Amino acid sequence: MKIGFIGLGNMGIAMAANLLKAGHEVTVYNRTAEKAQPLVAQGAKRADDIAQACAAEVVITMLADDHALESVVYGEKGVLECLPKGAIHISCSTISVALSEKLASDPQRAAQQFVSAPVFGRPEAAAAAKLFVVTAGHATSIDKCQPIFDAIGQRTFRFGDKPSNANLVKLSGNFLITSVIESLSEALALVGKGGLDQREYLEFLTSTLFTAPVYKTYGNLVIEKKFQPAGFLAPLGLKDVRLVLQAGESLRVSLPLADLVRNRFLTLLANGGESLDWSAISQISARDAGLK
Amino acid sequence: MKIGFIGLGNMGIAMAANLLKAGHEVTVYNRTAEKAQPLVAQGAKRADDIAQACAAEVVITMLADDHALESVVYGEKGVLECLPKGAIHISCSTISVALSEKLASDPQRAAQQFVSAPVFGRPEAAAAAKLFVVTAGHATSIDKCQPIFDAIGQRTFRFGDKPSNANLVKLSGNFLITSVIESLSEALALVGKGGLDQREYLEFLTSTLFTAPVYKTYGNLVIEKKFQPAGFLAPLGLKDVRLVLQAGESLRVSLPLADLVRNRFLTLLANGGESLDWSAISQISARDAGLK
Amino acid sequence: MKIGFIGLGNMGIAMAANLLKAGHEVTVYNRTAEKAQPLVAQGAKRADDIAQACAAEVVITMLADDHALESVVYGEKGVLECLPKGAIHISCSTISVALSEKLASDPQRAAQQFVSAPVFGRPEAAAAAKLFVVTAGHATSIDKCQPIFDAIGQRTFRFGDKPSNANLVKLSGNFLITSVIESLSEALALVGKGGLDQREYLEFLTSTLFTAPVYKTYGNLVIEKKFQPAGFLAPLGLKDVRLVLQAGESLRVSLPLADLVRNRFLTLLANGGESLDWSAISQISARDAGLK
Amino acid sequence: MKIGFIGLGNMGIAMAANLLKAGHEVTVYNRTAEKAQPLVAQGAKRADDIAQACAAEVVITMLADDHALESVVYGEKGVLECLPKGAIHISCSTISVALSEKLASDPQRAAQQFVSAPVFGRPEAAAAAKLFVVTAGHATSIDKCQPIFDAIGQRTFRFGDKPSNANLVKLSGNFLITSVIESLSEALALVGKGGLDQREYLEFLTSTLFTAPVYKTYGNLVIEKKFQPAGFLAPLGLKDVRLVLQAGESLRVSLPLADLVRNRFLTLLANGGESLDWSAISQISARDAGLK
Repeated sequence: MKIGFIGLGNMGIAMAANLLKAGHEVTVYNRTAEKAQPLVAQGAKRADDIAQACAAEVVITMLADDHALESVVYGEKGVLECLPKGAIHISCSTISVALSEKLASDPQRAAQQFVSAPVFGRPEAAAAAKLFVVTAGHATSIDKCQPIFDAIGQRTFRFGDKPSNANLVKLSGNFLITSVIESLSEALALVGKGGLDQREYLEFLTSTLFTAPVYKTYGNLVIEKKFQPAGFLAPLGLKDVRLVLQAGESLRVSLPLADLVRNRFLTLLANGGESLDWSAISQISARDAGLK
Repeated sequence: MKIGFIGLGNMGIAMAANLLKAGHEVTVYNRTAEKAQPLVAQGAKRADDIAQACAAEVVITMLADDHALESVVYGEKGVLECLPKGAIHISCSTISVALSEKLASDPQRAAQQFVSAPVFGRPEAAAAAKLFVVTAGHATSIDKCQPIFDAIGQRTFRFGDKPSNANLVKLSGNFLITSVIESLSEALALVGKGGLDQREYLEFLTSTLFTAPVYKTYGNLVIEKKFQPAGFLAPLGLKDVRLVLQAGESLRVSLPLADLVRNRFLTLLANGGESLDWSAISQISARDAGLK
Repeated sequence: MKIGFIGLGNMGIAMAANLLKAGHEVTVYNRTAEKAQPLVAQGAKRADDIAQACAAEVVITMLADDHALESVVYGEKGVLECLPKGAIHISCSTISVALSEKLASDPQRAAQQFVSAPVFGRPEAAAAAKLFVVTAGHATSIDKCQPIFDAIGQRTFRFGDKPSNANLVKLSGNFLITSVIESLSEALALVGKGGLDQREYLEFLTSTLFTAPVYKTYGNLVIEKKFQPAGFLAPLGLKDVRLVLQAGESLRVSLPLADLVRNRFLTLLANGGESLDWSAISQISARDAGLK
Repeated sequence: MKIGFIGLGNMGIAMAANLLKAGHEVTVYNRTAEKAQPLVAQGAKRADDIAQACAAEVVITMLADDHALESVVYGEKGVLECLPKGAIHISCSTISVALSEKLASDPQRAAQQFVSAPVFGRPEAAAAAKLFVVTAGHATSIDKCQPIFDAIGQRTFRFGDKPSNANLVKLSGNFLITSVIESLSEALALVGKGGLDQREYLEFLTSTLFTAPVYKTYGNLVIEKKFQPAGFLAPLGLKDVRLVLQAGESLRVSLPLADLVRNRFLTLLANGGESLDWSAISQISARDAGLK
């Protein structure tokens, strides 16, 4: 397939590379152009602007936030203006439910198809084509996209024909990850202050009731305090918890555990944590408990 | 070994039965005597009082709460008075850190050994001898108890020579389970009110990031609203979260997620949930969201 | 002075009437025109559009939210376009800190002056010219506005030359009111369930430590459950707590008590409270406690 | 009247002195005897033990906590054993609802009368006989005690014949004070980080909506950071919030604002605040916000 790919961060680069490996024709675009270099070396075409990236059957956007996606879509010579009729826009970014709804229902883009397909996995998983793809949109559009999803992920989950469903799943999934971080942080502060060995405690947890990788991964990060380099930056974690709370507010669903996590992020960021991994919110529990 | 077993609730009966199967000589005692009947049929001796159960190398207590254990230990003709010098008291109950410390350090019982060994697992796991045993106490005492732990559990985890360490692990582990229930309840209320299929959502979670059995077990209970018969009663869940908060207060560790869960229990119990499984705290999120 | 007044809700009507009484020349505008009728009877001129209201030395906006104010200011033939150079725009609405900053710093409106002047007081206070005016902006502009503030309020408080300061004071003040409602609701649920007479309890509080009118007013509303007609609608309360949380997020200040109140509003609105007074969030504490 | 007074802390000394001034015959007892010296100089008799203090028509206890009161009442030669039939025991301490209920219903003390009478006011108010007395118990007993209440306080509030009612009022009142501290702390952190002058802000609040002395007193303490010498020690604040949460748990009433305050205390105490005034919990909000 002829694919445009917009947004070459840690995740986007790895995803685009896997599309190339799978034999697709990929034109890549990034605001700061040098990011495209390694992909061009692997056979990608470089687009000089969004319009060139849109000369495709499918354009994929993998951007940092709502704001970035809005300017790429609605800006002059943006996706809305340039993507051909019948072509598909796949949004893989973690964006708000509200923006996803707006993108899906925009009457101006009726002739374009919109598929939401956020992904789960850290950069290593993206590189290994082991992402989990969560998607929603018209079934025929998604069917067309399936080879793309197969190239970047290990499994695809479909959540109906309303694209924003996929975003709600993504946001609530990230919320669940932060819940694991928070609960582990509190438990580790407790047993740590009680004099137990945190590593033995984690080993116990992850070999009995809490065998999911998410406990192992984050438990180790919290205990080792390996917050740099960040796999996922704390400010992005705050953004995601804000988006899940916004979705909750629209739907009139209170999410007190998400509030708690949001406050951890605010406290972390007010105290110098801008460049740390999101698991660094665990430091707030530790500090509150008087642990160094 | 010659073992006394005090406390024949759902868990205790199954544990005592496994000790019999493993060839130990078991004398059982329960306040309401008829509970002993099936075990007697399997070869146990029935004790008429605590003193008779204490005529043993090891006496195991598996009781509902601090209060029950205190009266068994400190009451007239109780464990303290009747257990021979050099014999071991294994406490498997989920009790407070404070009581565990008192039991361990009581100068009156210097000649008796005290081992704390709370267990993880619901009654089915107890019946299948698949419990996880968490233990702490003097190494030589625990070595002597190991055959007992092998008979009731699939694996034993040791946490040093301070018995209350094991209780802190048990309480914090239960706290982590309630954190899973709470986080799932909020996420399910959100996606449910958003119109997604909760079963598909749970299937996604448990086949990707949240593969631990605890997510599957409790996710299903929450979605199916199968709160009766209770595997673990809500009032006992409240007791455990109170005990973890008390431990946190003694150690000066705030546990805001535990506070949140505690309030779910209070609201559940104030609205008729006394006989429900502890996973029924999920109904509070659902009700708050205006879901039936 | 020649004053344009835009926004004739409960508050705006009373404020405009007091400006007339004080002898000012007032031209009023409201989207639904019939609201202007009583004021015209009192001597106001009716503007057919925003532009006519802007033919003045000062234009006052008293609108429901950010969205309404943005369209009045930035819309075609809006305040930005029509207000003469040197004239003053006084924004009395409870809006976000972010919008206030945008309005203040907009380079397009450099030739217009912007004063922020949100007010405290329910409609009765507005009618009696007993509002508290909280204002910020250039001192010379505020000096010019002082006769206006004197006509609508009992006292003016100045908070420097950055207009959004006044909005932060207004939002945090509303947050403090909701804190009073929440704390009273919890205390009343507790003593009520404990069998005490809530009226006697409130009488005790308000004649000893909590003599501020806010305790009397809201305590009575909560006890009498007089949530209709609403003095201040619950959805507006939610809006204000959202705005204070947004301000907190921008400044990296966590406000857990505000989160708690926000969740009360969400639960109230998810369960049919759209038309109730904001003090109806007290019903959530009562219901959680199992009180009718 | 012939009065025994047990417990000569900051509050007790001042209360006993006022009883002397009012002409009562007062016998005082304190565990560390030298505290009695100034009162003896004012005409009090010194009791060498509790029994001597109980040789009276009324014995008043003003002790630090449940534990202290229990040993004074239930210990050997304690109040239970020594107070004559028909005499009255007035408990002014801030104790748990549960202990108050136990003291009231203890069948062993049927021949003694029990009145609960906790007081509101800091030591200055006690010295000035300006306390607010909150009392409950049999009406005839309270009638007899009224001259005592008149001597120590400015006003008495009666809450029925169940003594623990008065304790619930006292505990919930202290909870409301901590709610004021918490809400002010959050608001002050917000406006402070926003660059406003906290003193001007407080001046605005306390001259408009929040005129109650409690806002002035605590607002100033928070802004001036005058946490030493402590008017009321942080560990006692923690004790009281624990007691109100226990009362809530017994009654199945969740008090999330009290949880929040409790966590502030825990964090303060985990970080060196043992000797500070309870208003120092405000430092946690400030620190979280990154304010010095």
